[in-house]
Amino acid sequence: MRFSAFFFDGACRAFHHRPTFSKLVVILAASGGGLVAYADSKSDHAIASSQVAPKKKVVVLGTGWAGTTFLKNLDSSLYDVQVVSPRNYFAFTPLLPSITCGTVEPCSIVEPIRKIIKKKGEIKFWEAECFKIDPTSKEVHCRADIGTNLDGNDEFLLNYDYLVIAIGARVNTFNTPGVVEHCHFLKEVEDAQKIRRSVMDCFERASLPNLDEEERKRILHFVIVGGGPTGVEFAAELHDFVTEDLSKLYPMVRDLVKISVIQSGEHILTMFDKRVTEFAEEKFQRDGIEVKTGFKVVEVSDKNITMANKSTGKMSVPYGMAVWSTGIGTRPVIMDFMKQIGQANRRALATNEWLRIHECDGVYALGDCATISQRKIMVAAQQGNYLAKCFNKMKDCEEHPEGPLRITESGRHRFRPFRYKHFGQFAPLGGEQTAAQLPGDWISIGHSTQWLWYSVYASKQVSWRTRALVISDWTRRFIFGRDSSRI
Amino acid sequence: MRFSAFFFDGACRAFHHRPTFSKLVVILAASGGGLVAYADSKSDHAIASSQVAPKKKVVVLGTGWAGTTFLKNLDSSLYDVQVVSPRNYFAFTPLLPSITCGTVEPCSIVEPIRKIIKKKGEIKFWEAECFKIDPTSKEVHCRADIGTNLDGNDEFLLNYDYLVIAIGARVNTFNTPGVVEHCHFLKEVEDAQKIRRSVMDCFERASLPNLDEEERKRILHFVIVGGGPTGVEFAAELHDFVTEDLSKLYPMVRDLVKISVIQSGEHILTMFDKRVTEFAEEKFQRDGIEVKTGFKVVEVSDKNITMANKSTGKMSVPYGMAVWSTGIGTRPVIMDFMKQIGQANRRALATNEWLRIHECDGVYALGDCATISQRKIMVAAQQGNYLAKCFNKMKDCEEHPEGPLRITESGRHRFRPFRYKHFGQFAPLGGEQTAAQLPGDWISIGHSTQWLWYSVYASKQVSWRTRALVISDWTRRFIFGRDSSRI
Repeated sequence: MRFSAFFFDGACRAFHHRPTFSKLVVILAASGGGLVAYADSKSDHAIASSQVAPKKKVVVLGTGWAGTTFLKNLDSSLYDVQVVSPRNYFAFTPLLPSITCGTVEPCSIVEPIRKIIKKKGEIKFWEAECFKIDPTSKEVHCRADIGTNLDGNDEFLLNYDYLVIAIGARVNTFNTPGVVEHCHFLKEVEDAQKIRRSVMDCFERASLPNLDEEERKRILHFVIVGGGPTGVEFAAELHDFVTEDLSKLYPMVRDLVKISVIQSGEHILTMFDKRVTEFAEEKFQRDGIEVKTGFKVVEVSDKNITMANKSTGKMSVPYGMAVWSTGIGTRPVIMDFMKQIGQANRRALATNEWLRIHECDGVYALGDCATISQRKIMVAAQQGNYLAKCFNKMKDCEEHPEGPLRITESGRHRFRPFRYKHFGQFAPLGGEQTAAQLPGDWISIGHSTQWLWYSVYASKQVSWRTRALVISDWTRRFIFGRDSSRI
Repeated sequence: MRFSAFFFDGACRAFHHRPTFSKLVVILAASGGGLVAYADSKSDHAIASSQVAPKKKVVVLGTGWAGTTFLKNLDSSLYDVQVVSPRNYFAFTPLLPSITCGTVEPCSIVEPIRKIIKKKGEIKFWEAECFKIDPTSKEVHCRADIGTNLDGNDEFLLNYDYLVIAIGARVNTFNTPGVVEHCHFLKEVEDAQKIRRSVMDCFERASLPNLDEEERKRILHFVIVGGGPTGVEFAAELHDFVTEDLSKLYPMVRDLVKISVIQSGEHILTMFDKRVTEFAEEKFQRDGIEVKTGFKVVEVSDKNITMANKSTGKMSVPYGMAVWSTGIGTRPVIMDFMKQIGQANRRALATNEWLRIHECDGVYALGDCATISQRKIMVAAQQGNYLAKCFNKMKDCEEHPEGPLRITESGRHRFRPFRYKHFGQFAPLGGEQTAAQLPGDWISIGHSTQWLWYSVYASKQVSWRTRALVISDWTRRFIFGRDSSRI
């Protein structure tokens, strides 16, 4: 969840539409600590073509990185587009760890999907969840799941000519007992908000009278299960929050706080270069964050986490709050779909190099539901962009195919296959220090990399609105510190 | 909840502590649309007096307007102060209606109580709820109620020499069936956040396929029960949100939206001057907000609100979302306390002119739990300020009483009695128009009053942090509109 590519995909449409506003925003950005918000002024608005034949129906499932990038780049005048997602917004997930400690506000990293599609014309959005895909009748079954005193006919059916599946993945608990009941996750904006409240709960709780020292220590033991980028960044953010803000407000308990990262492998951040891993482990040791490597969590109860090590066997540690961040699993609707198309026993949908699912006609899969790779966001965004471009030139390419020669039949493929471009990845480590692994085995670590991180994350925002808000949040934090109200 | 006094109570301590920061904030404030953030530089820091006798124990219940104002003005070096509240923050409640529509962010109107008391020295805060007051043994029983996987010995006991009860009131449903189950309230920050999500739910829900027009209309019927300032301001905010922001994002359903205000009396805003009421009713009529006066709600089901009128009898209207904002009731712990001290059958704690409860020694009551007046916030804040000043000069005044002559006994009262000063009140009506009723029968209505409202609310913030955040939220809304993500 913590990866971001160093490329600028010309996402800044609003710049062209609202010149005065964007000037104001640039001033804001400039005052926000010298951040460079870079705008690619490439104009790729498509000219609406007047077709006679009825438009083909495209149904997009999901409004995450893959789905949103696809929608942003699609020439929607060529298709009849419908979008289905239980979230009516796109969330900039790399900043989720920042929300857990109040560094960035939730509303600053979300953009209503209706605002994004409004600029594209006639796209329809349904806030609902797809619970069944039927590739033979080319239909998807959806269910609206909206709270409050509203009930009734919640299910509906959409049929498609092209289906783009981009619904992401779910958290993987590896069926460890007690995880769902007692651990927090960090996949959605709501998760991050809950974690924030829970951290404050622990501090208030530990400050209450008539508790013994042992109990206070337990309550202030924060455990992160999983030493991947999300877990590591959350640990770093939490450490900063505690040392920079909370230690002043809770002076009587600040020395009891302990942060632990439990990792089943031998090192944290294993997908990074060894230099980054070493730097991170050393920094965490200096900061007093305990890294327990070689331990696998086998059970979580309300007050204890039990873990197992090959040589030392089982051990149990008391804890106050736990965040589970170990990996991703397949969503039920995808599992059901895989069974139908003979892909059972796989962990994610298998696609060909053109992101198409071989077994069924006109169905594409992007992002986490089609990949088990670690570089999720980058892959998802690049796939969304690639597929939109294919859809935009579908008519042209049917007459003039641009892909490689077909192996089993004559002629060429319509499109060039998808190629993932690696641009680098970040690992924020707290204390205004970030590690970055760039292409060509180049490593950058330290305060300057933190500023690179700020700049890239600001520039990668989906709209000028969220860009300005994120920058203003950073400014707020810089001036006033993080907020510690339990709301 | 919507009243604010036009006085500046020297609340801006931070100004003295962080000169560079406040300069930056003033620049922010200036760029935020020409707002004048007025800072009273009166310095009333008390000099810590070195006492020999053990300090008297003061227990404060509640961190609302009364409790927080008391704490801010108390010379805490003179007493051993403990604060008990289930909320670890102070909330600027007049801006709650603004949160319901995303005009202002929740974190911008709350200030952690620990930040406020940190500046005062040795005050202790316990995040807990007082569930029993025992005036004979001079003890309060408290219970911590903190979520997540934490349980155990949650109850504790505090004893006091002086008890300041400032726990506010609860919502009054008048035992109307279905209100608790189906209506939203607007008393806490959480309520406002829920309303925001629910408004977005209704729009998404009404946009789903295969619903008939009747059903869409029902879902988009927003009902406000109670024509007081909170209800009226929420109706106005919602109308602005719909016309300025949502109508662009939900063009297919915008004409189906209806907002109704149900009021049992003959007019809305009855506590205001007739000119304000008339202006408000005319403006609402022009805006298409239906005002149903003379109707009392008698039952609420999941889809229908039933109301009764003296002449026409009962009628039922379908609705999508309802906000209940009719008045305040007594909290259970206060009812129990009133029984103990022989004040049963009252609606609020009776105090004398010095805010003391006559029946028991050293117990004071402030704000909503001690008043049934409409001008709640102003009264509460003035009472908190008054009582803190009394506590600060208690020793002096015991030797040199400054109050009026006692009637039944000889000598003088220690303090001058509390006198409420009326400074005026606001009624924001949407469309950047506000009505204000000022002292001396002076009425101000229109756009200029809206700017007065902005200035007063900015200046009345409890800290420089919240002041800057609120101003920056207004700026954000001015540039980018309100956010419509369902988070």
